[in-house]
Amino acid sequence: MSRLRVNSLAISLDGYGAGPGQTRAAPLGAGGRRLHEWMFATRTARQLFGQEGGATGIDDGFVARGFENLGAWILGRNMFGPVRGPWPDESWRGWWGENPPYHTPVFVLTHHARAPLPMEGGTTFYFVTEGIEAALRQARERAGARDVRLGGGVHTIRQYLEARLIDELHYAISPVLLGAGEALFRDLDLPALGYACAQVVAGEGATHVVLRRG
Amino acid sequence: MSRLRVNSLAISLDGYGAGPGQTRAAPLGAGGRRLHEWMFATRTARQLFGQEGGATGIDDGFVARGFENLGAWILGRNMFGPVRGPWPDESWRGWWGENPPYHTPVFVLTHHARAPLPMEGGTTFYFVTEGIEAALRQARERAGARDVRLGGGVHTIRQYLEARLIDELHYAISPVLLGAGEALFRDLDLPALGYACAQVVAGEGATHVVLRRG
Repeated sequence: MSRLRVNSLAISLDGYGAGPGQTRAAPLGAGGRRLHEWMFATRTARQLFGQEGGATGIDDGFVARGFENLGAWILGRNMFGPVRGPWPDESWRGWWGENPPYHTPVFVLTHHARAPLPMEGGTTFYFVTEGIEAALRQARERAGARDVRLGGGVHTIRQYLEARLIDELHYAISPVLLGAGEALFRDLDLPALGYACAQVVAGEGATHVVLRRG
Repeated sequence: MSRLRVNSLAISLDGYGAGPGQTRAAPLGAGGRRLHEWMFATRTARQLFGQEGGATGIDDGFVARGFENLGAWILGRNMFGPVRGPWPDESWRGWWGENPPYHTPVFVLTHHARAPLPMEGGTTFYFVTEGIEAALRQARERAGARDVRLGGGVHTIRQYLEARLIDELHYAISPVLLGAGEALFRDLDLPALGYACAQVVAGEGATHVVLRRG
Protein backbone atom coordinates (compact mmCIF):
# COMPACT_ATOMS: atom_id res chain seq x y z
CA MET A 1 0.00 0.00 0.00
CA SER A 2 1.37 3.37 -1.00
CA ARG A 3 2.29 5.58 1.94
CA LEU A 4 2.90 9.29 2.32
CA ARG A 5 6.33 9.68 3.92
CA VAL A 6 8.56 12.42 5.19
CA ASN A 7 12.25 11.49 5.33
CA SER A 8 15.38 13.18 6.60
CA LEU A 9 13.65 16.31 7.80
CA ALA A 10 16.27 18.16 9.85
CA ILE A 11 15.22 20.07 12.94
CA SER A 12 17.19 21.94 15.58
CA LEU A 13 17.31 21.11 19.29
CA ASP A 14 14.88 23.97 19.85
CA GLY A 15 12.44 22.55 17.33
CA TYR A 16 12.93 24.58 14.17
CA GLY A 17 12.87 22.99 10.75
CA ALA A 18 14.36 25.99 8.97
CA GLY A 19 15.98 29.21 9.99
CA PRO A 20 14.22 32.55 9.53
CA GLY A 21 14.61 34.55 6.33
CA GLN A 22 14.79 32.28 3.28
CA THR A 23 16.46 33.97 0.33
CA ARG A 24 17.84 32.84 -3.02
CA ALA A 25 21.32 32.76 -1.47
CA ALA A 26 20.11 31.00 1.70
CA PRO A 27 17.42 28.52 0.65
CA LEU A 28 17.33 27.02 4.16
CA GLY A 29 17.06 30.35 5.96
CA ALA A 30 19.59 31.87 8.36
CA GLY A 31 21.65 29.13 9.95
CA GLY A 32 19.57 26.48 8.24
CA ARG A 33 22.50 24.84 6.51
CA ARG A 34 23.87 23.76 9.89
CA LEU A 35 20.72 21.70 10.33
CA HIS A 36 21.69 19.61 7.34
CA GLU A 37 25.38 19.07 7.98
CA TRP A 38 24.76 15.50 9.12
CA MET A 39 23.13 14.81 5.73
CA PHE A 40 25.67 16.57 3.52
CA ALA A 41 28.33 14.35 5.15
CA THR A 42 26.71 11.12 3.91
CA ARG A 43 27.68 9.17 0.83
CA THR A 44 24.10 9.05 -0.42
CA ALA A 45 23.68 12.83 -0.30
CA ARG A 46 27.04 13.38 -2.00
CA GLN A 47 26.15 10.94 -4.77
CA LEU A 48 22.87 12.80 -5.37
CA PHE A 49 24.86 15.87 -6.26
CA GLY A 50 27.52 14.04 -8.25
CA GLN A 51 30.20 14.08 -5.60
CA GLU A 52 32.41 11.23 -4.45
CA GLY A 53 33.14 10.00 -0.94
CA GLY A 54 31.04 10.64 2.10
CA ALA A 55 30.27 8.66 5.22
CA THR A 56 28.39 5.39 5.39
CA GLY A 57 26.71 4.37 8.61
CA ILE A 58 23.51 5.19 10.44
CA ASP A 59 22.95 8.69 9.06
CA ASP A 60 23.66 7.47 5.54
CA GLY A 61 21.27 4.54 5.98
CA PHE A 62 18.44 6.91 6.87
CA VAL A 63 19.17 9.17 3.90
CA ALA A 64 19.35 6.18 1.54
CA ARG A 65 16.09 4.62 2.79
CA GLY A 66 14.42 7.96 2.14
CA PHE A 67 14.92 7.41 -1.59
CA GLU A 68 13.71 3.83 -1.72
CA ASN A 69 10.40 2.87 -3.30
CA LEU A 70 9.38 6.40 -4.31
CA GLY A 71 6.90 7.02 -7.10
CA ALA A 72 6.29 10.75 -6.68
CA TRP A 73 7.20 13.77 -4.53
CA ILE A 74 5.22 16.68 -3.13
CA LEU A 75 6.92 20.00 -2.33
CA GLY A 76 5.70 23.21 -0.83
CA ARG A 77 6.30 26.16 -3.07
CA ASN A 78 9.10 27.57 -0.92
CA MET A 79 10.96 24.26 -1.24
CA PHE A 80 10.80 24.78 -4.99
CA GLY A 81 12.10 28.32 -4.96
CA PRO A 82 12.27 31.83 -3.49
CA VAL A 83 9.69 33.35 -5.87
CA ARG A 84 6.55 34.55 -4.05
CA GLY A 85 3.20 35.56 -5.55
CA PRO A 86 2.38 35.10 -9.25
CA TRP A 87 5.16 33.64 -11.42
CA PRO A 88 6.71 36.64 -13.21
CA ASP A 89 7.94 34.31 -15.98
CA GLU A 90 9.06 30.72 -16.45
CA SER A 91 12.71 31.38 -15.65
CA TRP A 92 12.81 29.85 -12.16
CA ARG A 93 13.38 26.11 -12.62
CA GLY A 94 14.07 25.01 -9.03
CA TRP A 95 17.13 25.11 -6.77
CA TRP A 96 18.74 22.02 -8.29
CA GLY A 97 19.83 22.80 -11.87
CA GLU A 98 18.66 20.96 -14.97
CA ASN A 99 18.83 17.44 -13.46
CA PRO A 100 17.08 17.61 -10.06
CA PRO A 101 17.58 14.75 -7.57
CA TYR A 102 13.95 13.53 -7.74
CA HIS A 103 13.68 11.45 -10.95
CA THR A 104 9.90 11.16 -10.50
CA PRO A 105 6.88 13.44 -10.96
CA VAL A 106 7.08 16.26 -8.37
CA PHE A 107 3.88 18.05 -7.35
CA VAL A 108 4.52 21.63 -6.22
CA LEU A 109 1.86 23.31 -4.07
CA THR A 110 1.15 26.87 -5.19
CA HIS A 111 -1.68 29.35 -5.49
CA HIS A 112 -0.50 30.33 -8.97
CA ALA A 113 -0.96 28.10 -11.99
CA ARG A 114 1.96 27.25 -14.21
CA ALA A 115 2.53 24.75 -17.02
CA PRO A 116 4.28 21.46 -16.16
CA LEU A 117 8.05 21.74 -16.29
CA PRO A 118 9.89 18.66 -17.56
CA MET A 119 13.53 18.44 -16.49
CA GLU A 120 16.36 16.03 -17.21
CA GLY A 121 16.62 12.67 -15.46
CA GLY A 122 12.91 11.87 -15.19
CA THR A 123 11.84 14.77 -12.97
CA THR A 124 8.78 16.77 -14.07
CA PHE A 125 7.44 19.56 -11.87
CA TYR A 126 3.63 19.84 -11.83
CA PHE A 127 2.08 22.90 -10.21
CA VAL A 128 -1.02 22.13 -8.13
CA THR A 129 -3.37 24.97 -7.16
CA GLU A 130 -6.20 22.91 -5.65
CA GLY A 131 -4.62 22.25 -2.25
CA ILE A 132 -2.84 19.54 -0.33
CA GLU A 133 -5.41 16.78 -0.81
CA ALA A 134 -5.51 17.30 -4.57
CA ALA A 135 -1.72 17.20 -4.71
CA LEU A 136 -1.68 13.94 -2.76
CA ARG A 137 -4.35 12.43 -5.00
CA GLN A 138 -2.41 13.33 -8.13
CA ALA A 139 0.85 12.10 -6.63
CA ARG A 140 -0.74 8.79 -5.62
CA GLU A 141 -2.11 8.29 -9.12
CA ARG A 142 1.38 8.59 -10.52
CA ALA A 143 3.13 6.65 -7.76
CA GLY A 144 0.99 3.52 -8.06
CA ALA A 145 2.14 0.98 -5.47
CA ARG A 146 5.18 3.03 -4.57
CA ASP A 147 5.27 5.68 -1.85
CA VAL A 148 4.88 9.44 -2.12
CA ARG A 149 7.52 11.51 -0.34
CA LEU A 150 6.67 14.91 1.07
CA GLY A 151 9.80 17.00 0.85
CA GLY A 152 8.76 19.99 2.94
CA GLY A 153 9.03 22.71 4.00
CA VAL A 154 7.87 22.87 7.57
CA HIS A 155 4.67 24.78 6.83
CA THR A 156 3.61 22.18 4.28
CA ILE A 157 4.44 19.26 6.55
CA ARG A 158 2.40 20.83 9.34
CA GLN A 159 -0.60 21.11 7.00
CA TYR A 160 -0.37 17.43 6.08
CA LEU A 161 0.10 16.42 9.74
CA GLU A 162 -3.00 18.37 10.75
CA ALA A 163 -4.93 16.61 8.00
CA ARG A 164 -3.63 13.24 9.35
CA LEU A 165 -2.33 12.38 5.89
CA ILE A 166 1.28 11.53 6.70
CA ASP A 167 1.84 7.84 7.41
CA GLU A 168 5.48 8.04 8.50
CA LEU A 169 7.63 10.99 9.49
CA HIS A 170 11.38 10.55 9.90
CA TYR A 171 13.18 13.57 11.26
CA ALA A 172 16.71 14.14 12.44
CA ILE A 173 17.54 16.33 15.42
CA SER A 174 20.74 18.24 14.68
CA PRO A 175 22.97 19.32 17.58
CA VAL A 176 22.38 23.02 16.97
CA LEU A 177 20.19 25.78 18.37
CA LEU A 178 18.57 28.18 15.91
CA GLY A 179 16.64 30.44 18.28
CA ALA A 180 13.96 31.29 15.71
CA GLY A 181 12.44 29.91 12.54
CA GLU A 182 9.63 27.58 11.57
CA ALA A 183 8.64 25.44 14.58
CA LEU A 184 7.74 21.96 13.36
CA PHE A 185 5.48 20.76 16.18
CA ARG A 186 4.19 23.95 17.80
CA ASP A 187 0.51 23.63 18.79
CA LEU A 188 0.14 20.30 17.00
CA ASP A 189 -1.27 17.64 19.31
CA LEU A 190 0.46 14.70 17.68
CA PRO A 191 -1.01 11.94 19.88
CA ALA A 192 -4.51 13.31 19.19
CA LEU A 193 -3.70 13.26 15.47
CA GLY A 194 -2.83 9.57 15.78
CA TYR A 195 0.97 9.72 15.87
CA ALA A 196 3.31 7.79 18.15
CA CYS A 197 7.06 7.39 18.35
CA ALA A 198 8.17 4.25 16.54
CA GLN A 199 11.96 4.61 16.75
CA VAL A 200 14.78 6.77 18.12
CA VAL A 201 18.29 6.03 16.83
CA ALA A 202 21.52 7.91 17.47
CA GLY A 203 23.37 8.61 14.23
CA GLU A 204 26.86 9.95 13.72
CA GLY A 205 25.75 13.56 13.26
CA ALA A 206 22.10 13.65 14.33
CA THR A 207 19.49 11.80 16.38
CA HIS A 208 16.89 10.10 14.21
CA VAL A 209 13.23 9.86 15.19
CA VAL A 210 10.49 8.01 13.32
CA LEU A 211 6.85 8.80 14.04
CA ARG A 212 4.04 6.67 12.63
CA ARG A 213 0.31 7.04 12.48
CA GLY A 214 -1.48 4.12 14.11
CA MET B 1 33.33 28.82 40.73
CA SER B 2 29.81 27.94 41.76
CA ARG B 3 27.47 27.35 38.84
CA LEU B 4 23.71 27.28 38.45
CA ARG B 5 22.84 23.94 36.85
CA VAL B 6 19.80 22.12 35.59
CA ASN B 7 20.20 18.34 35.44
CA SER B 8 18.08 15.49 34.18
CA LEU B 9 15.22 17.64 32.99
CA ALA B 10 13.03 15.33 30.94
CA ILE B 11 11.27 16.65 27.85
CA SER B 12 9.14 14.96 25.23
CA LEU B 13 9.93 14.73 21.52
CA ASP B 14 7.46 17.55 20.96
CA GLY B 15 9.22 19.76 23.47
CA TYR B 16 7.13 19.55 26.64
CA GLY B 17 8.73 19.36 30.06
CA ALA B 18 5.56 18.33 31.84
CA GLY B 19 2.14 17.18 30.82
CA PRO B 20 -0.92 19.40 31.28
CA GLY B 21 -2.97 19.29 34.46
CA GLN B 22 -0.73 18.79 37.51
CA THR B 23 -2.64 17.37 40.48
CA ARG B 24 -1.73 15.84 43.81
CA ALA B 25 -2.13 12.40 42.28
CA ALA B 26 -0.24 13.34 39.09
CA PRO B 27 2.61 15.65 40.12
CA LEU B 28 4.10 15.52 36.63
CA GLY B 29 0.85 16.26 34.81
CA ALA B 30 -1.02 13.99 32.44
CA GLY B 31 1.39 11.56 30.84
CA GLY B 32 4.32 13.25 32.54
CA ARG B 33 5.52 10.11 34.27
CA ARG B 34 6.40 8.59 30.89
CA LEU B 35 8.89 11.42 30.45
CA HIS B 36 10.84 10.16 33.44
CA GLU B 37 10.83 6.43 32.80
CA TRP B 38 14.45 6.53 31.64
CA MET B 39 15.37 8.04 35.02
CA PHE B 40 13.27 5.79 37.23
CA ALA B 41 15.09 2.84 35.60
CA THR B 42 18.51 3.96 36.83
CA ARG B 43 20.32 2.72 39.91
CA THR B 44 20.95 6.25 41.16
CA ALA B 45 17.27 7.20 41.05
CA ARG B 46 16.24 3.96 42.75
CA GLN B 47 18.79 4.48 45.52
CA LEU B 48 17.44 7.98 46.12
CA PHE B 49 14.11 6.44 47.01
CA GLY B 50 15.54 3.55 48.98
CA GLN B 51 15.09 0.91 46.32
CA GLU B 52 17.61 -1.67 45.16
CA GLY B 53 18.72 -2.56 41.67
CA GLY B 54 18.39 -0.37 38.62
CA ALA B 55 20.45 0.10 35.50
CA THR B 56 23.94 1.50 35.35
CA GLY B 57 25.18 3.02 32.11
CA ILE B 58 24.81 6.31 30.30
CA ASP B 59 21.43 7.36 31.69
CA ASP B 60 22.56 6.48 35.20
CA GLY B 61 25.78 8.43 34.77
CA PHE B 62 23.85 11.57 33.89
CA VAL B 63 21.52 11.15 36.86
CA ALA B 64 24.46 10.56 39.21
CA ARG B 65 26.45 13.55 37.96
CA GLY B 66 23.40 15.68 38.62
CA PHE B 67 23.87 15.10 42.35
CA GLU B 68 27.60 15.80 42.48
CA ASN B 69 29.01 18.93 44.06
CA LEU B 70 25.67 20.44 45.08
CA GLY B 71 25.41 22.99 47.88
CA ALA B 72 21.81 24.12 47.44
CA TRP B 73 18.69 23.65 45.32
CA ILE B 74 16.07 26.02 43.93
CA LEU B 75 12.55 24.80 43.13
CA GLY B 76 9.55 26.49 41.64
CA ARG B 77 6.54 26.30 43.88
CA ASN B 78 4.74 23.74 41.73
CA MET B 79 7.74 21.43 42.05
CA PHE B 80 7.26 21.66 45.79
CA GLY B 81 3.58 20.88 45.78
CA PRO B 82 0.09 21.22 44.31
CA VAL B 83 -1.04 23.98 46.70
CA ARG B 84 -1.82 27.26 44.87
CA GLY B 85 -2.30 30.72 46.37
CA PRO B 86 -1.75 31.46 50.07
CA TRP B 87 -0.70 28.50 52.23
CA PRO B 88 -3.89 27.40 54.06
CA ASP B 89 -1.74 25.85 56.80
CA GLU B 90 1.65 24.22 57.25
CA SER B 91 0.50 20.72 56.48
CA TRP B 92 1.98 20.39 52.98
CA ARG B 93 5.60 19.30 53.43
CA GLY B 94 6.59 18.45 49.83
CA TRP B 95 6.05 15.43 47.59
CA TRP B 96 8.88 13.41 49.11
CA GLY B 97 7.97 12.43 52.66
CA GLU B 98 9.95 13.34 55.76
CA ASN B 99 13.39 12.68 54.23
CA PRO B 100 13.48 14.43 50.85
CA PRO B 101 16.21 13.52 48.36
CA TYR B 102 17.95 16.94 48.52
CA HIS B 103 20.06 16.91 51.73
CA THR B 104 20.89 20.61 51.28
CA PRO B 105 19.05 23.92 51.74
CA VAL B 106 16.24 24.13 49.16
CA PHE B 107 14.91 27.54 48.15
CA VAL B 108 11.28 27.41 47.02
CA LEU B 109 9.99 30.29 44.88
CA THR B 110 6.57 31.50 46.01
CA HIS B 111 4.51 34.65 46.30
CA HIS B 112 3.39 33.64 49.79
CA ALA B 113 5.67 33.78 52.81
CA ARG B 114 6.09 30.76 55.04
CA ALA B 115 8.50 29.83 57.84
CA PRO B 116 11.49 27.63 56.96
CA LEU B 117 10.69 23.94 57.09
CA PRO B 118 13.47 21.67 58.35
CA MET B 119 13.16 18.05 57.28
CA GLU B 120 15.15 14.92 57.98
CA GLY B 121 18.41 14.18 56.23
CA GLY B 122 19.75 17.72 55.97
CA THR B 123 17.04 19.20 53.77
CA THR B 124 15.51 22.51 54.85
CA PHE B 125 12.92 24.24 52.66
CA TYR B 126 13.19 28.05 52.63
CA PHE B 127 10.37 30.01 51.00
CA VAL B 128 11.56 32.98 48.94
CA THR B 129 9.09 35.69 47.98
CA GLU B 130 11.53 38.21 46.48
CA GLY B 131 11.94 36.58 43.07
CA ILE B 132 14.38 34.42 41.14
CA GLU B 133 17.48 36.57 41.61
CA ALA B 134 16.99 36.74 45.38
CA ALA B 135 16.55 32.98 45.51
CA LEU B 136 19.76 32.48 43.57
CA ARG B 137 21.65 34.90 45.81
CA GLN B 138 20.49 33.10 48.94
CA ALA B 139 21.23 29.70 47.42
CA ARG B 140 24.74 30.80 46.41
CA GLU B 141 25.44 32.08 49.91
CA ARG B 142 24.64 28.68 51.31
CA ALA B 143 26.31 26.68 48.53
CA GLY B 144 29.71 28.34 48.82
CA ALA B 145 32.04 26.84 46.24
CA ARG B 146 29.58 24.13 45.35
CA ASP B 147 26.94 24.41 42.62
CA VAL B 148 23.29 25.33 42.89
CA ARG B 149 20.86 23.02 41.13
CA LEU B 150 17.63 24.35 39.72
CA GLY B 151 15.10 21.55 39.93
CA GLY B 152 12.28 23.02 37.87
CA GLY B 153 9.55 23.15 36.81
CA VAL B 154 9.58 24.29 33.23
CA HIS B 155 8.13 27.72 33.98
CA THR B 156 10.86 28.42 36.55
CA ILE B 157 13.63 27.17 34.27
CA ARG B 158 12.35 29.43 31.48
CA GLN B 159 12.51 32.44 33.82
CA TYR B 160 16.13 31.68 34.74
CA LEU B 161 17.04 31.09 31.07
CA GLU B 162 15.56 34.42 30.06
CA ALA B 163 17.59 36.08 32.81
CA ARG B 164 20.73 34.32 31.46
CA LEU B 165 21.40 32.91 34.93
CA ILE B 166 21.72 29.21 34.10
CA ASP B 167 25.30 28.12 33.37
CA GLU B 168 24.58 24.56 32.29
CA LEU B 169 21.33 22.85 31.28
CA HIS B 170 21.25 19.07 30.90
CA TYR B 171 18.00 17.73 29.53
CA ALA B 172 16.93 14.31 28.34
CA ILE B 173 14.65 13.80 25.36
CA SER B 174 12.30 10.91 26.10
CA PRO B 175 10.90 8.87 23.21
CA VAL B 176 7.33 9.98 23.83
CA LEU B 177 4.90 12.54 22.42
CA LEU B 178 2.76 14.49 24.90
CA GLY B 179 0.80 16.73 22.53
CA ALA B 180 0.35 19.51 25.10
CA GLY B 181 1.94 20.81 28.28
CA GLU B 182 4.65 23.24 29.24
CA ALA B 183 6.90 23.92 26.24
CA LEU B 184 10.46 24.32 27.44
CA PHE B 185 11.98 26.37 24.63
CA ARG B 186 9.01 28.12 23.03
CA ASP B 187 9.85 31.71 22.03
CA LEU B 188 13.20 31.60 23.82
CA ASP B 189 16.03 32.62 21.50
CA LEU B 190 18.69 30.49 23.13
CA PRO B 191 21.63 31.55 20.94
CA ALA B 192 20.77 35.21 21.61
CA LEU B 193 20.71 34.39 25.33
CA GLY B 194 24.23 33.00 25.02
CA TYR B 195 23.55 29.26 24.92
CA ALA B 196 25.11 26.68 22.64
CA CYS B 197 24.97 22.91 22.43
CA ALA B 198 27.94 21.35 24.22
CA GLN B 199 27.02 17.66 24.01
CA VAL B 200 24.48 15.18 22.64
CA VAL B 201 24.72 11.60 23.92
CA ALA B 202 22.39 8.67 23.27
CA GLY B 203 21.46 6.92 26.51
CA GLU B 204 19.62 3.66 27.02
CA GLY B 205 16.21 5.30 27.49
CA ALA B 206 16.65 8.91 26.43
CA THR B 207 18.84 11.23 24.38
CA HIS B 208 20.90 13.56 26.56
CA VAL B 209 21.65 17.15 25.58
CA VAL B 210 23.88 19.58 27.45
CA LEU B 211 23.61 23.31 26.74
CA ARG B 212 26.12 25.78 28.14
CA ARG B 213 26.30 29.54 28.30
CA GLY B 214 29.45 30.89 26.68
